[in-house]
Amino acid sequence: MKYKAGIIGATGYAGVELVRLLLRHPHAEIAAISSVSYKGQKISEVYPALAMIYDAVLEDEQAVIDKSDVIFGSLPHGLSENIALQCEKSSKIFIDLGADFRLQNEEEYLYWYENNFQFHDLHKKAVYALPELNREEIKNKTIIANPGCYPTSVALGLVPAVSKGIIENQSIIIDSKSGVSGAGRTPTQTAHFPECNEAFAPYKTATHRHTPEIEQTLSRYADEKVYVTFVPHLLPINRGILTTIYANLKTEKHVEEIHAIYENFYKNEAFVRIMPIGQTSNVKYVRYSNYCNISLHIDQRTGRLIVVSAIDNMVKGAAGQAIQNMNIVLGIAEKAGLEMSAPCV
Amino acid sequence: MKYKAGIIGATGYAGVELVRLLLRHPHAEIAAISSVSYKGQKISEVYPALAMIYDAVLEDEQAVIDKSDVIFGSLPHGLSENIALQCEKSSKIFIDLGADFRLQNEEEYLYWYENNFQFHDLHKKAVYALPELNREEIKNKTIIANPGCYPTSVALGLVPAVSKGIIENQSIIIDSKSGVSGAGRTPTQTAHFPECNEAFAPYKTATHRHTPEIEQTLSRYADEKVYVTFVPHLLPINRGILTTIYANLKTEKHVEEIHAIYENFYKNEAFVRIMPIGQTSNVKYVRYSNYCNISLHIDQRTGRLIVVSAIDNMVKGAAGQAIQNMNIVLGIAEKAGLEMSAPCV
Amino acid sequence: MKYKAGIIGATGYAGVELVRLLLRHPHAEIAAISSVSYKGQKISEVYPALAMIYDAVLEDEQAVIDKSDVIFGSLPHGLSENIALQCEKSSKIFIDLGADFRLQNEEEYLYWYENNFQFHDLHKKAVYALPELNREEIKNKTIIANPGCYPTSVALGLVPAVSKGIIENQSIIIDSKSGVSGAGRTPTQTAHFPECNEAFAPYKTATHRHTPEIEQTLSRYADEKVYVTFVPHLLPINRGILTTIYANLKTEKHVEEIHAIYENFYKNEAFVRIMPIGQTSNVKYVRYSNYCNISLHIDQRTGRLIVVSAIDNMVKGAAGQAIQNMNIVLGIAEKAGLEMSAPCV
Amino acid sequence: MKYKAGIIGATGYAGVELVRLLLRHPHAEIAAISSVSYKGQKISEVYPALAMIYDAVLEDEQAVIDKSDVIFGSLPHGLSENIALQCEKSSKIFIDLGADFRLQNEEEYLYWYENNFQFHDLHKKAVYALPELNREEIKNKTIIANPGCYPTSVALGLVPAVSKGIIENQSIIIDSKSGVSGAGRTPTQTAHFPECNEAFAPYKTATHRHTPEIEQTLSRYADEKVYVTFVPHLLPINRGILTTIYANLKTEKHVEEIHAIYENFYKNEAFVRIMPIGQTSNVKYVRYSNYCNISLHIDQRTGRLIVVSAIDNMVKGAAGQAIQNMNIVLGIAEKAGLEMSAPCV
Repeated sequence: MKYKAGIIGATGYAGVELVRLLLRHPHAEIAAISSVSYKGQKISEVYPALAMIYDAVLEDEQAVIDKSDVIFGSLPHGLSENIALQCEKSSKIFIDLGADFRLQNEEEYLYWYENNFQFHDLHKKAVYALPELNREEIKNKTIIANPGCYPTSVALGLVPAVSKGIIENQSIIIDSKSGVSGAGRTPTQTAHFPECNEAFAPYKTATHRHTPEIEQTLSRYADEKVYVTFVPHLLPINRGILTTIYANLKTEKHVEEIHAIYENFYKNEAFVRIMPIGQTSNVKYVRYSNYCNISLHIDQRTGRLIVVSAIDNMVKGAAGQAIQNMNIVLGIAEKAGLEMSAPCV
Repeated sequence: MKYKAGIIGATGYAGVELVRLLLRHPHAEIAAISSVSYKGQKISEVYPALAMIYDAVLEDEQAVIDKSDVIFGSLPHGLSENIALQCEKSSKIFIDLGADFRLQNEEEYLYWYENNFQFHDLHKKAVYALPELNREEIKNKTIIANPGCYPTSVALGLVPAVSKGIIENQSIIIDSKSGVSGAGRTPTQTAHFPECNEAFAPYKTATHRHTPEIEQTLSRYADEKVYVTFVPHLLPINRGILTTIYANLKTEKHVEEIHAIYENFYKNEAFVRIMPIGQTSNVKYVRYSNYCNISLHIDQRTGRLIVVSAIDNMVKGAAGQAIQNMNIVLGIAEKAGLEMSAPCV
Repeated sequence: MKYKAGIIGATGYAGVELVRLLLRHPHAEIAAISSVSYKGQKISEVYPALAMIYDAVLEDEQAVIDKSDVIFGSLPHGLSENIALQCEKSSKIFIDLGADFRLQNEEEYLYWYENNFQFHDLHKKAVYALPELNREEIKNKTIIANPGCYPTSVALGLVPAVSKGIIENQSIIIDSKSGVSGAGRTPTQTAHFPECNEAFAPYKTATHRHTPEIEQTLSRYADEKVYVTFVPHLLPINRGILTTIYANLKTEKHVEEIHAIYENFYKNEAFVRIMPIGQTSNVKYVRYSNYCNISLHIDQRTGRLIVVSAIDNMVKGAAGQAIQNMNIVLGIAEKAGLEMSAPCV
Repeated sequence: MKYKAGIIGATGYAGVELVRLLLRHPHAEIAAISSVSYKGQKISEVYPALAMIYDAVLEDEQAVIDKSDVIFGSLPHGLSENIALQCEKSSKIFIDLGADFRLQNEEEYLYWYENNFQFHDLHKKAVYALPELNREEIKNKTIIANPGCYPTSVALGLVPAVSKGIIENQSIIIDSKSGVSGAGRTPTQTAHFPECNEAFAPYKTATHRHTPEIEQTLSRYADEKVYVTFVPHLLPINRGILTTIYANLKTEKHVEEIHAIYENFYKNEAFVRIMPIGQTSNVKYVRYSNYCNISLHIDQRTGRLIVVSAIDNMVKGAAGQAIQNMNIVLGIAEKAGLEMSAPCV
């Protein structure tokens, strides 16, 4: 028997990526999907790629909660607390791909999202769930805050260095580049093809909402409040995030030492690949997959560590990691449904 | 127990796509892979996307034949006859992704490929294998000629109309557009990024080697020798073929009639999707999948049928169809290992 | 002294392309520009590419008419007749980049655009202006209908063959592919980057509004009413149209003969380049320029002529041709302001 | 009468960009062009975009030197010293787009380029020519070292801050992203379309040869030896460099202060555009133009200055700047031939 999974907000890019991945999951099946805009239509009318494969009709939120054991929420921030409440009442598991439960500090949430927490009890029950870092805490939880895409790429790339104390914590500079799917499905001037094709620019320079989430994770492993400079850029490709991270080494290190620390840190991880010394992470190696590639470089002349981290923003950065979290919560094989490689071309 | 599959020429784009797909096949496993250029190296050194997923070492042709039940050949034309011979001697199944066994008429092969058949007996044993058209002939064969990418998109798009006799057979015009992966992995001026990005042009106008293969299939269903005009174009995307086909209708028809003919023709087919009237095929709906999308349009003012057929050139146009053929030959579920949908973004 | 040019609708893609080109025109200067949405703002706020080069403030329609000798209208169809009327009253020259004056037959306009002509007198005064075909008719006119982008690529590619009577007029099939700028500046689902990048499809199959305009031109040179099949496709590049045209030859012809006919037809034309036999038109050779490249191919096996015509949809297909028409009307050098080549990379 | 310009290495991407720009120069004309690989052919056979516009035959190096007043060298490093020698003998001006004369320190040249200086006298006569920084030094020079593409984007973005002493000189981190044309015209695996399309990665991480050139310029204005971390990335677009620069502010500053410093520094510059506060540089605003856009941002939380600098790597980063230098040396208007804006789409 398979677990029943439901998706609220199934027609957004992250929602439909959940559909794509869950359809191939060996131990879960999609019980119901919802959409406000397309309720009553088949999802395959919205996404013809799914025709003859998955022609389910989009229902409403309540139907999804009723029919599912695990509910994925893939909505703009501000809408998840109520869903979480409904899930709690029905003793269902809620995995939130939005931002509502990611920040533990309400003041930070207020500052960056201009909103207060609605139900404080729910926030206490929730867990920020990045499996490679806090797998044990996730088990037995029922409200799962799935990390943001950029913060995933940063946390996986930096936590080994931060937790081992080899870099100056306040020297971290994060230069991220994301494919356009990260901007969502709604047409905008910025994501209009002739505007972003053959173009490239940063956006929300040093003011992006993922900043406090990044700092929250790094601070936890640094044992001090860490402040970072974070600048995301819009990359004219569909998918993928590549993050280039710079930090001052506390003492001179050979790349072999750093490499060994990272290899050891992730030695039991299925989805993190530390690239051989001399090779470089590339979005190409991870897109459409749940892998995170990390390459390590040292600028000997300036004493800096450079970490290059690549993920697929829609998989490890959203739907794939959400399924990984579901697998952990349900106690099934963590890799289930997530073993596909990136296509080589 | 799983069938043992081997791949000769595993580092080309079609070869490595076989790897990607076979790694997820429920009833087959990769027994050995070969490459002339990279022999002795891990395939994951050539394609880092495979690291930690499939780190097998590239061997030579003979090792692949020895270790496998089914051998896929993914080589430039002219090299497959010898492999087929070795496979026959060892009673192994050979599935050729090259052109050597596609044409039945040696004169045509000589004309278009400037080569004679080497082993005529092998050609008699071989079958041109496009499952949706000649599934029954494929079973029990041991030399399988996997169709070319363009011919697959054309045959699936036209055979219903040709076999039902509704179009003028000598009026067929085929305007195809293919992603750059079709040009292979070797760098060339044509496929150099700054040359083909933001560019678009036909190539081998009315002289492409897939022309006789297209005509061979259509002639078979037309009961006359059919000549077509075929013009391929290079599309600045990685993957996918979209073929727009024009033909004069013998008598006036409503699109509903044509649509019903196609629906009926493919009613039992898992991988052919006739799009609803009013919708249009798009490379987007099929890439990275084994599906062929077909949309049907009538130009009432000129009495022409327009068929738009879309496939992924690397999947239904190469590796996916080869696995579909393997499934047929081995008598296992035809969809096995091929059920993934195109990503929606 | 320079002629004063004005642009109504200057913030659309064609409008701002007029700005870019007129800024480099030796005998004209921009006197005023207008926009409904951005009135009162600098155009360089809308398009930062123009900052420090052209920081003019957007005014309204009337200001443009008042301040200019020549008024370019770059608006959706249906809005130009009133502007033309105002221009006539003020004895100004009006060059319309929209569709309002392109069709001579009101019934066809009604059928395809669902609109009647408003001012019949103006339509009598207007000229459909494709300089290479009817330069003499354009001189001394004051209402200039600038041709559509697709029709320009088709007319230049086909008129020599049609007017020389070498093809069967009712056998013409036109397969066009256009860059996304042709869809305009307003964001839509179709032109949303993640939807059209790595995608390819036809649209408005055999129902595009440029069809009657194409037929009007061809019919004129064929001395009979010509019906064509016309299918446009959306190409994931910013700029350029490539049109592949198929037609049955009345009698067998060598490509050299056809080539000579075309060379002769365009022997005095500065902007039409007949490519050497054996070479192929490419969007790459014409983008950002006013050139039209034409390559000629014969499919000897089927007796068909294949013409491949490439233009930049924003230049020869819109703003560049409009300036070429302005030059003709003003009696200045036809190439003035239009001599730039396509960038080679 | 126009000055006679010659181009050695005219079929490389920078060489042919010189052709494109010089063809529109009001005071210079191309006297001769050379190529080793294509000698004797028309350049328009290599680049059909130039057909009917510039069909000159490619000659050899000596012919170019003989026929020209100003010689542009656009060759791989190591070949320019001999050309410079020939130019000196003939009292011609030599503008080198290669790296041979950029570094003043021979040890650094040896370290990074694994080559010694050949003719020390020539190096003493040469000037590193970045007009916005050292215009006066360039006048009257006859050997002009045209800066590298990345160093141009960095120097223009950082020199105001460095020379005003507002940042910590040893804290500079430079994250650059370049279009693929920067990799040149020769096909490689890295620049093969299916490899770099929909991909993104750094290369030569902290080991790129432009590093010492960047440091040479910054050190000059810092009055101390400055070491930087420099990481270039390959961007899947044809043209353009965007460089994101991070540095610690010595003391807290408002962005208005920094903005005023930059505005003032470049107040007389035609080609540097300091973007309004709140806006962001984008490759889109500068491609195909000689402009450099700079936007300024402060991360108040960490006390860092973030400078975003964008140029077209082929224009301000190569051919355009070379022509700007020619204009300075010849004493003609510095903007001559370089006034075109970036296309808005």
